[in-house]
Amino acid sequence: MTADAKKPQLPGSSTPLLDTIDSPDDLKKLRRDQLPALAAELRQEIVQLAAPGGLHLASSLGATDLIVALHYVLNSPRDRILFDVGHQAYAHKLLTGRRAQMPTIKKEGGLSGFTKVTESPHDAITVGHASTSLANALGMATARDALGQDYKVAAVIGDGALTGGMALAALNTIGDTGRRMLIVLNHNEMSISENVGAMSKFMRTLQVQKWFQEGEGASKKALNAVSRPLSDFMSRAKSSTRHFFDPASINPFAAMGVRYVGPVDGHNIQELVYLMERLVELDGPTILHVVTRKGKGLAYAEEDPIKWHGPSRFDPATGQSVPGAAAPAGAPVRQSWSAAFGEAMTELSRQDPRAYVITPAMREGSGLVGYSQAHPNRYLDVGIAEEVAVTAAAGMALQGLKPVVAIYSTFLQRAYDQVLHDVAIEDLDVVFAIDRGGVVGADGATHNGVFDLSFMRSIPNVRIGLPRTALELRGMLKEAMRVGGPVAIRYPRGDTLKAPANAWPDLQWGTWERLQAGDDVVVLAGGKALEYAEAALHDLPGVGLVNARFVKPLDTAMLRDIASRARAIVTVEDNTVVGGFGAAVLEALASWGVQVPVRVLGIPDEFQEHATVERVHARSGIDAQAIRTVLAELGVDVPLGV
Amino acid sequence: MTADAKKPQLPGSSTPLLDTIDSPDDLKKLRRDQLPALAAELRQEIVQLAAPGGLHLASSLGATDLIVALHYVLNSPRDRILFDVGHQAYAHKLLTGRRAQMPTIKKEGGLSGFTKVTESPHDAITVGHASTSLANALGMATARDALGQDYKVAAVIGDGALTGGMALAALNTIGDTGRRMLIVLNHNEMSISENVGAMSKFMRTLQVQKWFQEGEGASKKALNAVSRPLSDFMSRAKSSTRHFFDPASINPFAAMGVRYVGPVDGHNIQELVYLMERLVELDGPTILHVVTRKGKGLAYAEEDPIKWHGPSRFDPATGQSVPGAAAPAGAPVRQSWSAAFGEAMTELSRQDPRAYVITPAMREGSGLVGYSQAHPNRYLDVGIAEEVAVTAAAGMALQGLKPVVAIYSTFLQRAYDQVLHDVAIEDLDVVFAIDRGGVVGADGATHNGVFDLSFMRSIPNVRIGLPRTALELRGMLKEAMRVGGPVAIRYPRGDTLKAPANAWPDLQWGTWERLQAGDDVVVLAGGKALEYAEAALHDLPGVGLVNARFVKPLDTAMLRDIASRARAIVTVEDNTVVGGFGAAVLEALASWGVQVPVRVLGIPDEFQEHATVERVHARSGIDAQAIRTVLAELGVDVPLGV
Repeated sequence: MTADAKKPQLPGSSTPLLDTIDSPDDLKKLRRDQLPALAAELRQEIVQLAAPGGLHLASSLGATDLIVALHYVLNSPRDRILFDVGHQAYAHKLLTGRRAQMPTIKKEGGLSGFTKVTESPHDAITVGHASTSLANALGMATARDALGQDYKVAAVIGDGALTGGMALAALNTIGDTGRRMLIVLNHNEMSISENVGAMSKFMRTLQVQKWFQEGEGASKKALNAVSRPLSDFMSRAKSSTRHFFDPASINPFAAMGVRYVGPVDGHNIQELVYLMERLVELDGPTILHVVTRKGKGLAYAEEDPIKWHGPSRFDPATGQSVPGAAAPAGAPVRQSWSAAFGEAMTELSRQDPRAYVITPAMREGSGLVGYSQAHPNRYLDVGIAEEVAVTAAAGMALQGLKPVVAIYSTFLQRAYDQVLHDVAIEDLDVVFAIDRGGVVGADGATHNGVFDLSFMRSIPNVRIGLPRTALELRGMLKEAMRVGGPVAIRYPRGDTLKAPANAWPDLQWGTWERLQAGDDVVVLAGGKALEYAEAALHDLPGVGLVNARFVKPLDTAMLRDIASRARAIVTVEDNTVVGGFGAAVLEALASWGVQVPVRVLGIPDEFQEHATVERVHARSGIDAQAIRTVLAELGVDVPLGV
Repeated sequence: MTADAKKPQLPGSSTPLLDTIDSPDDLKKLRRDQLPALAAELRQEIVQLAAPGGLHLASSLGATDLIVALHYVLNSPRDRILFDVGHQAYAHKLLTGRRAQMPTIKKEGGLSGFTKVTESPHDAITVGHASTSLANALGMATARDALGQDYKVAAVIGDGALTGGMALAALNTIGDTGRRMLIVLNHNEMSISENVGAMSKFMRTLQVQKWFQEGEGASKKALNAVSRPLSDFMSRAKSSTRHFFDPASINPFAAMGVRYVGPVDGHNIQELVYLMERLVELDGPTILHVVTRKGKGLAYAEEDPIKWHGPSRFDPATGQSVPGAAAPAGAPVRQSWSAAFGEAMTELSRQDPRAYVITPAMREGSGLVGYSQAHPNRYLDVGIAEEVAVTAAAGMALQGLKPVVAIYSTFLQRAYDQVLHDVAIEDLDVVFAIDRGGVVGADGATHNGVFDLSFMRSIPNVRIGLPRTALELRGMLKEAMRVGGPVAIRYPRGDTLKAPANAWPDLQWGTWERLQAGDDVVVLAGGKALEYAEAALHDLPGVGLVNARFVKPLDTAMLRDIASRARAIVTVEDNTVVGGFGAAVLEALASWGVQVPVRVLGIPDEFQEHATVERVHARSGIDAQAIRTVLAELGVDVPLGV
């Protein structure tokens, strides 16, 4: 791979410097004044790689310069470079021997979209969720010192991720224990949505523009200060140096016990190298505050970094998107589940003045742009702080609102205790609109929402529904507001049939729906899994099919009826088989003392690496073919090859 | 109740002022100069109430003065007063019509040890876990403004709880959205253990001692500043006022967008009233930093607030503890599970230089005082930040240590995502020593550790063991280090047989143990539930009994063998019946296509309010009597009345 890896992989690119690099050691052979040109080549390559769509473009472009500087100064993999979230690290992958494999990124068997320790010794952490890098770095620096070793630890964290609770709490212990590490605060004022929060505003005040304008002069002054002896460096008495390190004279990082340096231009590589070389030699923890532009070097991406966070297929030359295949004329109108939710909430909030929507930094992803414009006074973005989203909803419910927490399944994992302790114990009226429930595909193991049925089901008082269509989602939202208590409505990544505007079907919580008659063998499935079951059973008229749209409580009347007559029951779920929907059915039958064979189909008890959603479902054994195979094993006469 | 409630409830106390108070309205009839005497009466009453043991004494004494001031200034329940954790709120309960019931606190059917919204309209939140008050207050202030109402919101939070991630993250949004609220930072430098973290150190620097010494003079200056017009008040140009509000000239609260006032003496009630009256009228969020002493007014408790956090039975006059009944001569030596764990880890860390222990602020509770003294360089207290504890462990494991996270079951709920995302995906070698697994009794619904088998089992790669004795705990710890990967070892509150020093039995992970032969009906139980099963079966020699000490993986070979011969299986667990051990057995049998009736005994799917552990187990149907009843239903010949 090594020789090939140096070759340009993409048509039309000219990357003479990058072509010489297969590892950080190769990078160190370049002169410092060549680094900006290398960064330009990296950005060019990243744009080419992202053009087919589905990659994290803007953040990777913005972080390229600081990544080049870090690898120039540090010696990975001995030194540890941690990337928070890990979606900004494409330049890091390109510089660490993975250039040839980059076109496989996020594809089955290919590279991960994030950093992953089993993918490369240069990937210090396996990641995908935000705000974990500082606690990991704390652990690593602690391990280094406990074992008497002396490598360096550097974490790159965005300003959005830094406002996550666990990052702030980690900073508190990092400052307290004082272990040596470099924290690069990559400040681009933009996580996935526009950043919110007081810290973000404060950080903006730290960006004294003159530092950028003074340029070289400012840098020189900074570097002189840095290269002074440490005792001097840290002295509060030296007000001339103090001002640089603490420009606004109020600084939460200093209060946390962490040395603060900055802000500096995150696109001036030579200045970054000069600073980092000195800062990594200092004892204790240091924050280097660098200001970058998401989408750097690509004019259209710099202008609209939210759009270019993860663009679909586009023409690199123009930034024009390349449309996919048009839907056939006359096909039913479809929309994303997120959009269906956002539209439904926008309408529902018009009808109900107590409705309120909370998002933890996922306005775009959760389909809430229109809602936030229609109901700006009933919309709260708490930043990347899922715990705060859930507990703030509890406070709202206690004081008369009907809050809806719009959250991805994988991120709701962050707030398990808040759902239990702050919402469920007092049975408060909080709706959880759980997006990306089930397998998400290309984002892989860190992002699959295949645990929520299990962990939410374990919490008393929680109701769980899996809508089959956007219309059923509307029915469940309406019903959730009516029944009260904690209600989870879970829908997958992907799209669904669009519901008619103003359609609000009646739906009684806890009632299943028989879709196909049949008493001998009955398939129970809800949500995405129901789509597979419908496909599997389309030519098997004797097999019973139930839209098991409520996982908690189950439709016990219907289940008892089915169990009293069935020879076998098959449950299908887009969730782990451990403690999920199938387990709920088993528990119910056992509690009634009813003996019926149950085949539980779901995601196996192992982490699912990235691939398309369909592939992961196929290899998990929940797709239509897998269901047909199980039915054949149960003696159903299944025609071959359909 | 109202008339009775005003009467002194305890012998030997003289409480003339308190006797006139049945509600905050009564309190407001007192003159301001009577408030210190009232506070002294409250403290006297609290000491008397705590003397029988089991209450949170020191923190309630420390918070009494500020609670009197808050209720004097605010109008609860219209105004909302939130107590973080809620264990410091005894004075609040005494002032809000619950004096007559106070002797029932933490007893079955009696008052909760924390605040609880269903107990009193004056309890704004139901609580028990730390750091939730600010997110709740954010939600309440948001609801108030969204609904056009105008009540006041005040949160009382300790410096320990403030360093929890979700509190810091909530502060970030509170400062950003700028909703009116008062945050009383109750700074006593002591949560349950000694507080750690840089914020704690920083807050100490804010305690410029002269403010206390100058006394009245300082207060006057402060109050003049507060009563100035708001535009003036907030002006940075007014350096004379600024210094008071920002004494160290660096202030993380100001950076968070929250007005900071303090520090002030938290035991000077009249000053607190004067300040609070003005601060609650200000727009936006304000932190009032008050310094208090835990154990205030009780000399021995002030001297050792950790010991007096939750004392057992003592003589109020002397502070001498009143010993309980001595163990009968010749009885086996017992010790708490926490002590057993601490001793085992102290030994294990002598044998294995890579062993490392992390605690989220629970040194005393987790039995780690001795360990922290024996291995100070392999011990980290991250403060009240369970997420950081788990992810720092991941970082340590990645760099060659063998970290053990010592954590209460109920607090591990806080780190579900970190176990899954940071530890389990890469199968890292992290041991979770889960204390207080199962029902905890007097602390009630917020603290019961009855969900861990369910939520931990849902995570791939996690192993789960339930030791029966301290000796088996040692075997499991040793085995956990050997097998690697994420390993959870879960033990209950309470005590166990002490193990011989240096005893490290061999134990193969995933192997159950047959304790009593019997093939027809077999009882499977582990941990605390096994004690009940043993008691239930002592005179039923024909019933099989298995120490099902491993919940993940199950001993599938033994389970298959049992299932192939049994007429019925009974599973017993000190965990919710939803998705727990019984569900694991049902899932395994279903996956094998084996039909055996299984009776799943465990904690019902509802929150368990406080009572003794034994009572909760009895009413849940998992104690010896309940097991015998089930066996009789299954046709076992069970002698009556044993």
